[in-house]
Amino acid sequence: MDFRSAHILSIEQFERDSIDRLFETADFLAPYARRQKRTKVLEGAILGNMFFEPSTRTRVSFGAAFNLLGGFVRETTGIDSSSLKKGESLYDTARVLSGYSDIICMRHPQAHSVAEFAEGSRVPVINGGDGPNEHPTQALLDLYTIRSELAAHDRTIDGLRIAMIGDLKHGRTVHSLSKLLCLYKNITVKLVSPEALALPNYLIDSLVNAGHRVEVSNDLENGLKGVDIVYSTRIQEERFSSSEEANLYRGQFRLNETIFTANCEPNTVIMHPLPRDSRSDANELDNDLNPNPRLAIFRQADNGVIVRMALFASILDVVHLVEKYEAPIHWASRR
Amino acid sequence: MDFRSAHILSIEQFERDSIDRLFETADFLAPYARRQKRTKVLEGAILGNMFFEPSTRTRVSFGAAFNLLGGFVRETTGIDSSSLKKGESLYDTARVLSGYSDIICMRHPQAHSVAEFAEGSRVPVINGGDGPNEHPTQALLDLYTIRSELAAHDRTIDGLRIAMIGDLKHGRTVHSLSKLLCLYKNITVKLVSPEALALPNYLIDSLVNAGHRVEVSNDLENGLKGVDIVYSTRIQEERFSSSEEANLYRGQFRLNETIFTANCEPNTVIMHPLPRDSRSDANELDNDLNPNPRLAIFRQADNGVIVRMALFASILDVVHLVEKYEAPIHWASRR
Amino acid sequence: MDFRSAHILSIEQFERDSIDRLFETADFLAPYARRQKRTKVLEGAILGNMFFEPSTRTRVSFGAAFNLLGGFVRETTGIDSSSLKKGESLYDTARVLSGYSDIICMRHPQAHSVAEFAEGSRVPVINGGDGPNEHPTQALLDLYTIRSELAAHDRTIDGLRIAMIGDLKHGRTVHSLSKLLCLYKNITVKLVSPEALALPNYLIDSLVNAGHRVEVSNDLENGLKGVDIVYSTRIQEERFSSSEEANLYRGQFRLNETIFTANCEPNTVIMHPLPRDSRSDANELDNDLNPNPRLAIFRQADNGVIVRMALFASILDVVHLVEKYEAPIHWASRR
Repeated sequence: MDFRSAHILSIEQFERDSIDRLFETADFLAPYARRQKRTKVLEGAILGNMFFEPSTRTRVSFGAAFNLLGGFVRETTGIDSSSLKKGESLYDTARVLSGYSDIICMRHPQAHSVAEFAEGSRVPVINGGDGPNEHPTQALLDLYTIRSELAAHDRTIDGLRIAMIGDLKHGRTVHSLSKLLCLYKNITVKLVSPEALALPNYLIDSLVNAGHRVEVSNDLENGLKGVDIVYSTRIQEERFSSSEEANLYRGQFRLNETIFTANCEPNTVIMHPLPRDSRSDANELDNDLNPNPRLAIFRQADNGVIVRMALFASILDVVHLVEKYEAPIHWASRR
Repeated sequence: MDFRSAHILSIEQFERDSIDRLFETADFLAPYARRQKRTKVLEGAILGNMFFEPSTRTRVSFGAAFNLLGGFVRETTGIDSSSLKKGESLYDTARVLSGYSDIICMRHPQAHSVAEFAEGSRVPVINGGDGPNEHPTQALLDLYTIRSELAAHDRTIDGLRIAMIGDLKHGRTVHSLSKLLCLYKNITVKLVSPEALALPNYLIDSLVNAGHRVEVSNDLENGLKGVDIVYSTRIQEERFSSSEEANLYRGQFRLNETIFTANCEPNTVIMHPLPRDSRSDANELDNDLNPNPRLAIFRQADNGVIVRMALFASILDVVHLVEKYEAPIHWASRR
Repeated sequence: MDFRSAHILSIEQFERDSIDRLFETADFLAPYARRQKRTKVLEGAILGNMFFEPSTRTRVSFGAAFNLLGGFVRETTGIDSSSLKKGESLYDTARVLSGYSDIICMRHPQAHSVAEFAEGSRVPVINGGDGPNEHPTQALLDLYTIRSELAAHDRTIDGLRIAMIGDLKHGRTVHSLSKLLCLYKNITVKLVSPEALALPNYLIDSLVNAGHRVEVSNDLENGLKGVDIVYSTRIQEERFSSSEEANLYRGQFRLNETIFTANCEPNTVIMHPLPRDSRSDANELDNDLNPNPRLAIFRQADNGVIVRMALFASILDVVHLVEKYEAPIHWASRR
């Protein structure tokens, strides 16, 4: 795919080559996200950060990424009930809002709404999550994190051994990550979940058809053995018909420092799409893992800013100008 | 009127000359809104975008207009229930908030609240809509659109033939536009509405007293004939005592491509203050008009940004400096 | 204390020397807040303005202060119910959000939540109010206002005579101000309240132990006599078990121009933490005081921006660079 002026609606748009290019751009932009450098390349540009469903962290991550490139952010943080009540179509909303900014990030509770919106938009649109459907930037930051963590040991995504643990039925992030892994070679995927929350068959089939090894079980300790990445997920309570039903599964696969040490290889990296459920009855990743340098969950969140910067810079075609518009940092940085 | 440091509270402040000057400024700023040029003239200035009633599009339009001139935007997006509950007066709120910015745009559900607020403010205040009372920037962008669309055929507002259609009783925008048209000469106004939703008599009287021709009817097809502008409006459901009552009128005056072709002159321009009601039972402007180049409703919305830029630049007295502080655009623009 | 990279969680962190330095910085920055000068020293820096409890004026004041130093602001304006529901800890929230900005201001309804948040944060955190606990920047702006108002008559905080009036039991601001006054010498504090709403004993003890004179009464007119500062407060209705109980006390200590003239010295300055309750049954400071130049309540609010600028500049260690990155102001300023 060509990023320039493209809408980013689904991870299915990406081939391996375009992901490689995006991640190279992300590597290049990381020092700007980490405040070792600063650029004003998007000075004067406006991001329309249209969150028609609240999501503080994703919204602020997109906005910060745009600010880090020098641009302004205009935003909305909830459904515009008035215009909906007045019967406005997504096409009209998009036509109007796209006159107010140079690029739009949109989140909306309804599946496929972002694609419908993009049809009316005169500027590029990035899907910030359209309900149960897609959240492509989360999948990209997950894959970028896997790549970065493996690179520290001179490994690549080809040959990856990964365990995905928890609610694999409802977890939008594991679905998207599974699809992306089909673009790579020689991968071992260990799926650990209650039988009722297994990864959908069509995704398992895709992995197998891509030539990958897939092991399905409900045994946490066995699942943790011999993998590079443990990708833990939360029970997606909000997708169950009742919280009683969700409670049946909550807390079944808890990982803590003792279990990690007993079962995992020393270099095994722990990931989670966040938020992790830290209540005592859930606690999928215990707080005693916090000092463990293999806990990559906050590096994952940091990588979200980097990957979003890479998308903005690629779509708006300024990657080659980032260094030209560097500017000094005057303040004390603690990062 | 002198725009410098003025509050913009009502369209009744404007004479023909001040509108001419504002629209000339708007023409001058249009390339900046369209991303053909960029200016940093308001770099460092702060807009207080105080929306005490939600309105995504108007709020983002004001904010984007200020960003396009280089300034920062601080904003609020709903009623500050806590301060109201604590018994604070609008005067106090204005005194305090006006210490936080260089200019304020305020929207509030209560009629005349913005004028009361302006009395306490130490910086210029623009009325972003005060309930049933006024929304002066909408009236200005409507008139600017009429002027721009006519100019494409070497016509001026003097001599205009316009049909206003729909809920002419409750539509704040048609009221304001009627008042503005009284500043011009030799205008034909065709008013098409159900009898119960007719334009108030005092407005008809004003138009007649200004020397204009006014025709009142409830016949859509006849109303469409021989006009330069069709200004369609939504049934303002929220102003009726019940939705049943509103339903009596919904969908009575639907314009679509077939009706347009059969009745309108080829150059007739279609306007609407938006949002248009695209539900099947309303549908005042059918989606089959979308490819029609005479459908100006999205140009209208784009003009809102331009007119707001012109107001900001005029009030803050930087029109003559816009070009001096031009800066390059580095990113790919799709506009 | 050393401001550089420090969290500002409580006024108990401050000694007299650090307050002196902060207020000197505030004096230095005042012309920038008043638009006599402009600086871009924090250009490119990002404030995370995280208001997990609504507070329009405090939020906008922090944001404006950061903009006035040239920086960007990303913000949130309400509790992120989704992440809380999903069981995320404040530690996790802080670790993630601190990757999105260079400094954070946080307000949260729960006492001590900001300190807990700061433990997870990788960037400096300023307490913007943690429920019933602390609101340190309000206390600092109050003390800065006292210092500034006294300085106009060549007086200092040492030797101050102050009356605190109203709900001294629940008023977070009078508690914090009392603590700060213990750092100074030779102060007379007149406490005027209904007996049931008296200042807590531990605070009276602290004032006495600091060598100050404390007079307790419920007599407004006597309390107003012989003081430099009248610090009036609102009945904190929201802290009472019922509004009926609050109504018992509302309107007991009303100050108006007649009472002021009859009882106060001509130079006595009137302060109030705002919002003042302007409803007729409360009206602790009558609107007829508005033209009185001794009414300092709006200067107080303006000082909030100045003190917050001083905190940002001190924590991010750019005070010495503010002048170096001065930039011109192009727009007409009414301040």
